[in-house]
Amino acid sequence: MHCPAPKLSPPPPDTPTATRPAQVWRVDGNHVIADTDQLIEEIPVALVYNGISHAVLLATPADLEDLALGFSLSEGILASRAELYDAEQVPGSRGIELHLEISSERFAGLKARRRNLAGRTGCGLCGVESLDALARPHPHLPSHAPVPIAAAFAGLAALPGHQPLRQTTGAVHAAAWIGRDGAIRALREDVGRHNALDKLLGHLAATRFDPTDGFVLVSSRASYEMVQKTLALGIGSLVAVSAPTGLAVDLARESGLGLAGFARDRRMVIYAGPERFSPVDQT
Amino acid sequence: MHCPAPKLSPPPPDTPTATRPAQVWRVDGNHVIADTDQLIEEIPVALVYNGISHAVLLATPADLEDLALGFSLSEGILASRAELYDAEQVPGSRGIELHLEISSERFAGLKARRRNLAGRTGCGLCGVESLDALARPHPHLPSHAPVPIAAAFAGLAALPGHQPLRQTTGAVHAAAWIGRDGAIRALREDVGRHNALDKLLGHLAATRFDPTDGFVLVSSRASYEMVQKTLALGIGSLVAVSAPTGLAVDLARESGLGLAGFARDRRMVIYAGPERFSPVDQT
Repeated sequence: MHCPAPKLSPPPPDTPTATRPAQVWRVDGNHVIADTDQLIEEIPVALVYNGISHAVLLATPADLEDLALGFSLSEGILASRAELYDAEQVPGSRGIELHLEISSERFAGLKARRRNLAGRTGCGLCGVESLDALARPHPHLPSHAPVPIAAAFAGLAALPGHQPLRQTTGAVHAAAWIGRDGAIRALREDVGRHNALDKLLGHLAATRFDPTDGFVLVSSRASYEMVQKTLALGIGSLVAVSAPTGLAVDLARESGLGLAGFARDRRMVIYAGPERFSPVDQT
Repeated sequence: MHCPAPKLSPPPPDTPTATRPAQVWRVDGNHVIADTDQLIEEIPVALVYNGISHAVLLATPADLEDLALGFSLSEGILASRAELYDAEQVPGSRGIELHLEISSERFAGLKARRRNLAGRTGCGLCGVESLDALARPHPHLPSHAPVPIAAAFAGLAALPGHQPLRQTTGAVHAAAWIGRDGAIRALREDVGRHNALDKLLGHLAATRFDPTDGFVLVSSRASYEMVQKTLALGIGSLVAVSAPTGLAVDLARESGLGLAGFARDRRMVIYAGPERFSPVDQT
């Protein structure tokens, strides 16, 4: 294709940022023009526990300490925020290392888990390597006050105004904590929907939130792992803008989680735990 | 919430299927009615190489042999289709095991890779555990005949009619192989965008396709891993309906891959390899 030679993009700055500019060519029908665009940043983030590199995530480099705490809790590496003593970001040429100091008891648990697994593993279940390793106990959630459906609709309506990275780059997932009054209390964005949720959960845990006082709203679909992560923090309801999977619905029903999907324009579909939603605004 | 008691969903059949019905409650404003809905299935699929369980993916149970071959090739476990001697599905209560027989040379390579890694790992980079393990050689792609932009637009326009699971369940990713004439030659669907791409690549490899004779179109965003997987099969161009990430653009530029995003309604943005696209339909 013959088109104007672009200038080279500036090198990414040493300090990681969530977005960066890039030279692009816009095609409209058969018309092509050189332009610039803002890209969402995605970098390898290694989680290093007490000196041992445990996992690498591809994540947007913002709110990484929330990500570290949220991942540690939602994956069951830590049971409480107090077990994370310190978190430090160490930027390198290939990505960012997050050095986490955790309690010796939890580190012993992590090492025992690692000894039980033989090697390299795959995407999708955060390192589970065989079907036998899948089972993870899910206590049934205690009953909470139901989420007013009006609050879900109010949160949905407010969502677009709270997604700055999405507004700039076009395709970033968000996870939000919505109060029972429908107000957005916190929101995190990431290229990965699991990362966005982990960042939100980490932020909530760091601020000693009350898991009975609201619900999680995600801009994406609801998969098995997202239900699992929500349950790990004791939250009662998860509302997704898009579809849930069959396995996510199974887990939500077994655990008593309220799960709604296709939440758009004052409509949604409740897939599990209808008792966790109330039609009348009770706030 | 008070609403009609639903009938229980029928238990999932022994034979895995890509979708299943479920009882749901439709909320429209404050009005709630019990109904049924079709859910996309997502089940754990364990990849077992020569008797050793290597990875578990959450995937839609359709075209699993394509997934096995595509994952093996795109992750560099196999170098060619001929190294996969046999693939057998073994359904179990917790998921499906895919028993794969691979050449002894490749199995030795897999075991060596596994020995180099100590244990449990994370999502996002298919089991990479530390930043040191990230580097993977990416040979520069040879030049191919450019993709006519008109072919990309034709493929995009035809896409919705070829996504039966999406039409039924609302949120499933697709990856398609589009000929240089704009015709959809093959398409695979999955709850996971990486799985959809691996299924497509596996199908292409099984049918001894010519990687210079078309391009990959994905219904999702383009991440680093999706660029990596496309490159592994020697394909020259990747067109995504949504945004690419910064890291995906970096890798595409370094490797000579043509990468376009936001491909919709006779528009798209070319992020890398503009010489791999031609404005005039040359078919």
